[in-house]
Amino acid sequence: MTENKKITERLQLLRSAMKENRINYYMITSADCHGSEYVHEHFRARAWFSGFTGSNGTLLVGQERAALWTDGRYFLQAEKQLAGTGIELMRMQEKGVPTIEEYLEKHLTGGEVLGFDGNCVSAEQGEKLEKVCRKKGAAIIYEKDLSDIAWADRPALPAEAVWELSEEYAGESCGEKLKEVRLVLEKEGADCLFLNSLDDIMWLFNLRGSDIACNPVALSYALVEREACTLFLQKKAAPDLSLERYGVVIEEYDRIFDWLDQWLLEKTGRKNAGQDQKAQESAVKISAPGEYLSYRLMKVLSEKSTLILQESPTQLLKAIKNERELACSREAYLRDSAALCKFIYWLKGHVGKEEITEISAADKLEEFRRQIPGFLDISFTTICGYADNGAIVHYSATEDTSRRLEKKGLVLVDSGGQYLGGTTDVTRTIALGEVSEEEKRIFSLVSSATLRLADAVFLEGTTGRNLDILARQDLWKAHLDYKHGTGHGIGYILNVHEGPQRISWQYRKETKEYALRAGMLTSDEPGMYFAGKFGVRTENILEVVKEEENEYGTFLGFRHLTWVPIDREGLDKQYLTAEDVDRINAYHREVRERVFPLLEKEEQEWLIQVTAEL
Amino acid sequence: MTENKKITERLQLLRSAMKENRINYYMITSADCHGSEYVHEHFRARAWFSGFTGSNGTLLVGQERAALWTDGRYFLQAEKQLAGTGIELMRMQEKGVPTIEEYLEKHLTGGEVLGFDGNCVSAEQGEKLEKVCRKKGAAIIYEKDLSDIAWADRPALPAEAVWELSEEYAGESCGEKLKEVRLVLEKEGADCLFLNSLDDIMWLFNLRGSDIACNPVALSYALVEREACTLFLQKKAAPDLSLERYGVVIEEYDRIFDWLDQWLLEKTGRKNAGQDQKAQESAVKISAPGEYLSYRLMKVLSEKSTLILQESPTQLLKAIKNERELACSREAYLRDSAALCKFIYWLKGHVGKEEITEISAADKLEEFRRQIPGFLDISFTTICGYADNGAIVHYSATEDTSRRLEKKGLVLVDSGGQYLGGTTDVTRTIALGEVSEEEKRIFSLVSSATLRLADAVFLEGTTGRNLDILARQDLWKAHLDYKHGTGHGIGYILNVHEGPQRISWQYRKETKEYALRAGMLTSDEPGMYFAGKFGVRTENILEVVKEEENEYGTFLGFRHLTWVPIDREGLDKQYLTAEDVDRINAYHREVRERVFPLLEKEEQEWLIQVTAEL
Repeated sequence: MTENKKITERLQLLRSAMKENRINYYMITSADCHGSEYVHEHFRARAWFSGFTGSNGTLLVGQERAALWTDGRYFLQAEKQLAGTGIELMRMQEKGVPTIEEYLEKHLTGGEVLGFDGNCVSAEQGEKLEKVCRKKGAAIIYEKDLSDIAWADRPALPAEAVWELSEEYAGESCGEKLKEVRLVLEKEGADCLFLNSLDDIMWLFNLRGSDIACNPVALSYALVEREACTLFLQKKAAPDLSLERYGVVIEEYDRIFDWLDQWLLEKTGRKNAGQDQKAQESAVKISAPGEYLSYRLMKVLSEKSTLILQESPTQLLKAIKNERELACSREAYLRDSAALCKFIYWLKGHVGKEEITEISAADKLEEFRRQIPGFLDISFTTICGYADNGAIVHYSATEDTSRRLEKKGLVLVDSGGQYLGGTTDVTRTIALGEVSEEEKRIFSLVSSATLRLADAVFLEGTTGRNLDILARQDLWKAHLDYKHGTGHGIGYILNVHEGPQRISWQYRKETKEYALRAGMLTSDEPGMYFAGKFGVRTENILEVVKEEENEYGTFLGFRHLTWVPIDREGLDKQYLTAEDVDRINAYHREVRERVFPLLEKEEQEWLIQVTAEL
Repeated sequence: MTENKKITERLQLLRSAMKENRINYYMITSADCHGSEYVHEHFRARAWFSGFTGSNGTLLVGQERAALWTDGRYFLQAEKQLAGTGIELMRMQEKGVPTIEEYLEKHLTGGEVLGFDGNCVSAEQGEKLEKVCRKKGAAIIYEKDLSDIAWADRPALPAEAVWELSEEYAGESCGEKLKEVRLVLEKEGADCLFLNSLDDIMWLFNLRGSDIACNPVALSYALVEREACTLFLQKKAAPDLSLERYGVVIEEYDRIFDWLDQWLLEKTGRKNAGQDQKAQESAVKISAPGEYLSYRLMKVLSEKSTLILQESPTQLLKAIKNERELACSREAYLRDSAALCKFIYWLKGHVGKEEITEISAADKLEEFRRQIPGFLDISFTTICGYADNGAIVHYSATEDTSRRLEKKGLVLVDSGGQYLGGTTDVTRTIALGEVSEEEKRIFSLVSSATLRLADAVFLEGTTGRNLDILARQDLWKAHLDYKHGTGHGIGYILNVHEGPQRISWQYRKETKEYALRAGMLTSDEPGMYFAGKFGVRTENILEVVKEEENEYGTFLGFRHLTWVPIDREGLDKQYLTAEDVDRINAYHREVRERVFPLLEKEEQEWLIQVTAEL
């Protein structure tokens, strides 16, 4: 095996930095300081030092050895990318493969030091590592980011322009939102709320940014007290915000730790309050979202205050969209749907006649979206998987894998846009020519599953665990299943994946379930994937609406936000019940009515054909 | 208001006993020592002292005042029954009504004493009362049962014959069951399992009794250690058991506390081990079912041992029926179904021609069941509710309420039997003559709901919360709902309600959910109730069966145990989908095939008619 010089040299630099800092093992994760799902290039140190570019992986480097942990989705990719680097691949969940903690327990010896950037390690993982180190008599250094030393041309922290979302789009002022948050704090008996999750902060202050690709968020922290409110931003990126009127004081983003030290000192009166039982009881009670908090923040906050790790009240408030957000979303989704219709019409007309690849098709779709007024960005990297590539659930075409689309079979396109007016997410599987009987059967089952769930009516209190089976039942009856959830929440001009509600059937005792509430949005995306053959997914975004209130309670239902035809060429009535056919016809009638005015003449003619009664 | 002399005199006797024992407030619950759902007359002290006979209620008696707490089902009944007793009715959950703890917090003063029989108060409630008393500087006496003093003609503890269930019916020896329980204990790191829930004990030792009406259980306790096993029974009721061969030592039921004291003393070595940190760590670890344990047992066990309150391993082992139990159940259900068919045929032929009341109809049904070989008892008091009485979910006809059945409308009959071979539970709503359009619509919706759930296919790991919506969805779409669960587990020659699995949609964060497993039984009983008008419920018992194992996992499904026609006279195709009709026809075909041979000629002719294709 040839040595991967690029990587071994980088590791050498890291090891020198470790020596200088008397660190024996250094751990690099794939997280940023905010528990974000997607991260900026600045935080991709693990990829830089290891060569492994998957979304999930942790690198542990010792002076003699190095190892990288990743999950089953990435075993093949990691094998290739780690070849010649000397880094051992740790296949997570496989038999006999130790966890990082088990590995450290085996290799760490007393007096040694484990290092990591505590900003990029979750509080939960940090505590596990702490336990191992305590057991082995080893120390932890978590306040040094060695990547800053060993990664010479590390991209700077992003500091893209921060902008205010006007009330015309936000529907509610920052002042009103702060009031709601403080009401919850009061009810819970907390003195303040600390936030490091970026979408919660953006929502609360009606701000947006571009520090993470596809995610209109800005690097930030926030502390909401009963009477005061401090927002930490990179001031150079946000020179003229008008938040002062809501009592919001803006501090410099990178002063967070100094500022917190000082603030906690003032709040607690004396430095070691935390060690004194009485003082601890009277200490300031900080509520913070346990799911997102970093180990370093947890350490700082818990040392001198009573830290309550729980869901932030912003989560639920943000998930229930207000009337303005809903109205804007309906409009944005309609225009986004029209763009996808134009794309499908274009694709069906051009495939086989000119060179179209997975990548160029995705580019073309983006082109259609860019023409929509208010377009900001795509909301995630488009998944465009042709034939067998459609079976890879988290597929992202690269120059190596991108297939040329032919006039046959199915292409799965999962895409979305960020608009001044909403964040969209939609999947259609498109027949490019002849499709097999098996493809038709699966396409029919999956697409009717999407509409069955969308047709649900349910009492308030119902959670996604109750509803999931409405999508899955007919697949289960055919002894089939898809290994992903059926629905996720979605942000408003924010992250494409948003909690706290989800539609998924599995039971996890520890996971709190959230009931669906009127005004929430959810995706509805059953699928089926046959490795080496084809994949099908049909995804609409649904709005939860109130249907009726009577002696039995309040009944909720769904309303489609997405209006894109389900490909008739993939459907076969022999696999559909009469009710399924009725649902498809009803949906198509509405698609036709709504999208027709937004299309060109030829597209309109096509729309009439593809939405005709089955 | 006239004084209710009977009750005021009884209360006077209780108050005298309280004075003698220096007790200021005495509390009487509706529980027995075993957390049983139904209790023997001996434990109905609350009814005796208050006159209130509902299944749920707690009486608190002071020297000056007395109050009774009950829930919404019983407000009207309690009002009537408490009139003239001087006992104040506390309507639980109503605004401004204090809980017992709140009431005591208001009235108790320092130095006073609260008394109750700690055997008949749950550990959870006892701890709440403890907290109140501590706060108020009051004491608790929980080892004295004043009912024994003040209730002169109190029925003795039942001591009906205890008998052994042969392996022919049990399918597994007590020795094998003890082995399985000990494996779980070992895995959990517990030294022993203490049981006071009667059905768990009956199951474990392959015993049955008759100490509670309709529930073939015997008063008992059990302690399963790794090497030893002690069973506490009333020896006079169980003279010749052959459990010795499994190492089971039988002790006298009423020696439980003396025995436990002695045993704990031996185990812990010295008396106050519990107060010493080190000793506590090495103390014997007792696992006990928190749901059933009484306050007194909890106090005794936790004082000198480490008490782990959790579900007993017997719960799940008992719920998953073995092959023998399943085979016997299938046979018992078929014969029980035939008895119900005979009853329906008889009822339809005789109603309007002779005097039939709710009570006499129930008696007639019991008569049919008694003719089945192996009949032991009915499994619960038959619910036979005609017309508006059918709308009362937990209805039980009395001489006062029992209606005469007429040749029109619906009668709801929920009944079951105990057989050497199984415990049954079945509900059919029967049209006695003309039924209204509304009744047909509801009957059709409810009955198709039952069959929709029965038709489910689901992956292993699925719980009742996932499945409930399959029954409820079409009712919800009609903006209707029933305010009870859809399914409960059922015992084998044991209690008609059995855990741990259930089919119910509501989310309760604290409640652990149990996945359905092959071999479990569950009821499937959607219903609808219109106060003052009519009620409909259709209930079958289902067996969980394995359908298929493939790359997606293990698929489970249901098989009917109940084979009784769904009344065609209540069905109307306009309220059914084509799939519903298919399901009803398929079910009826099987009913016909299976039940036909068990009927007389005239009944057979009738069966053919009522199971004909819709």
